[in-house]
Amino acid sequence: MTAVDFLPFVDRLAQISGEAIMPFFRAAFAMEDKSGGGVFDPVTEADRAAEAAMRRLIKESFPNHGVIGEEFGAWGEMSEYVWVLDPIDGTKSFISGLPLWGTLIGLLHQGSPCYGLMHQPFTREKFYGDGAEAHWSGRGARHGENATRRLLTRACAGLDRATLMTTSPKLIPEALRPRYEALEAKTRLVRYGGDCYAYCMLAAGHVDLVVEAGLNAYDIVALIPIVRGAGGVVTTWDGGDPSKGGAIVAAGDRRTHEQALEVLNADL
Amino acid sequence: MTAVDFLPFVDRLAQISGEAIMPFFRAAFAMEDKSGGGVFDPVTEADRAAEAAMRRLIKESFPNHGVIGEEFGAWGEMSEYVWVLDPIDGTKSFISGLPLWGTLIGLLHQGSPCYGLMHQPFTREKFYGDGAEAHWSGRGARHGENATRRLLTRACAGLDRATLMTTSPKLIPEALRPRYEALEAKTRLVRYGGDCYAYCMLAAGHVDLVVEAGLNAYDIVALIPIVRGAGGVVTTWDGGDPSKGGAIVAAGDRRTHEQALEVLNADL
Repeated sequence: MTAVDFLPFVDRLAQISGEAIMPFFRAAFAMEDKSGGGVFDPVTEADRAAEAAMRRLIKESFPNHGVIGEEFGAWGEMSEYVWVLDPIDGTKSFISGLPLWGTLIGLLHQGSPCYGLMHQPFTREKFYGDGAEAHWSGRGARHGENATRRLLTRACAGLDRATLMTTSPKLIPEALRPRYEALEAKTRLVRYGGDCYAYCMLAAGHVDLVVEAGLNAYDIVALIPIVRGAGGVVTTWDGGDPSKGGAIVAAGDRRTHEQALEVLNADL
Repeated sequence: MTAVDFLPFVDRLAQISGEAIMPFFRAAFAMEDKSGGGVFDPVTEADRAAEAAMRRLIKESFPNHGVIGEEFGAWGEMSEYVWVLDPIDGTKSFISGLPLWGTLIGLLHQGSPCYGLMHQPFTREKFYGDGAEAHWSGRGARHGENATRRLLTRACAGLDRATLMTTSPKLIPEALRPRYEALEAKTRLVRYGGDCYAYCMLAAGHVDLVVEAGLNAYDIVALIPIVRGAGGVVTTWDGGDPSKGGAIVAAGDRRTHEQALEVLNADL
């Protein structure tokens, strides 16, 4: 059984999670804490509703698969197949009304990421890959209403030509921040914000480098097969396996990745 | 003749500019300069094509109106009505594939902003207002495919409860940056990126404060009637008329605006 067999199932997961989340996106709600504890937190509500729905469907369909999720923890982690779920990656964008969050659905086979999907239900885009290939579906002026196209990273010969994205420099632990700042100073253009959307723009060839730190496994597992399937490279800052999270560097071009590792690991 | 009469015309302007821009958004293109000067710059191409199309339609329809645009300068600036155009506000988001740019179409009547529209052709959203009212149209889970709803800012009692947006702290001139940093430190949540999208999220009640500096008139004129129409306040950092651009503070709640001005103008 290859990861490709799961494709229609992953689409169903994305659909039910999108249906659970969208009523909460841009919903009017009071931010003021009047009750001293009984605050309605729409992002937590949406996160929990979507993850519960996905877990239910996984358990019904594949009772011997494991699940790791942001909201409800790990179950059956030692199974051959383990689903890794983050219903709303980019909660700060979500609560600010910005469409740069996404639902991450990843699949581990014997501990290695073998399939990943990022679903943005407001823009109705999906980015998905299996490490060998990656695709996008959505709408575009040149592609029609329900188009699909291959995702391919773009060439980038060096840092001085690179567009770098990071969710926020302030999310990088202080001990690592001087290394990040040194890298940022060498790039051509920097964009903050983005979370999972940044990795998808890298896979689509619009961005050259994504650098973050302090990620959880569920923040990155789904994105690894997308970036790799589009021809990109993704590792930890020391060049190791990224599938447990931590400090992550993704690049569209191997040359940019090598140069980024050099700067991030140089003696300061 | 009131500004409301221009509404169907503004929709036509938005449509033709969207059609001019969308073929360039996320278009595959070489970033490398191989020809030493003959570089294809998609954002400039899209910007110029959209502004030229809008100017043509304005000139045909209202030959005695003036036009100020980012790409082709000012014409008839002393006219009773002057259109203020920025086809792609947020060019850095545009070239990074992110849907947080927008087309700004503003109208000055005797020098005062009387109507403004922000159009995002990828997400197919419009935010528009005349200073007294503001509306959004687009799609939403709770609103259907072609919904319209009233834009209203949300209450925010103070900076410690405020979500602040700015395009990038690095765009704020160094002389003003310590004042900006002092303000940022007092807020609850900060999001970078956004350009015109940030003001629209403020008008929609998802964000409480937008603070920028170094804006041109065409970056802000269209947004003023949207923010004010939604119940917000927008001025320069010293509390003056924002319609010439410069250093801008927009707030959804008058209390937050007052507190922001205090911090931005305090002795450091």
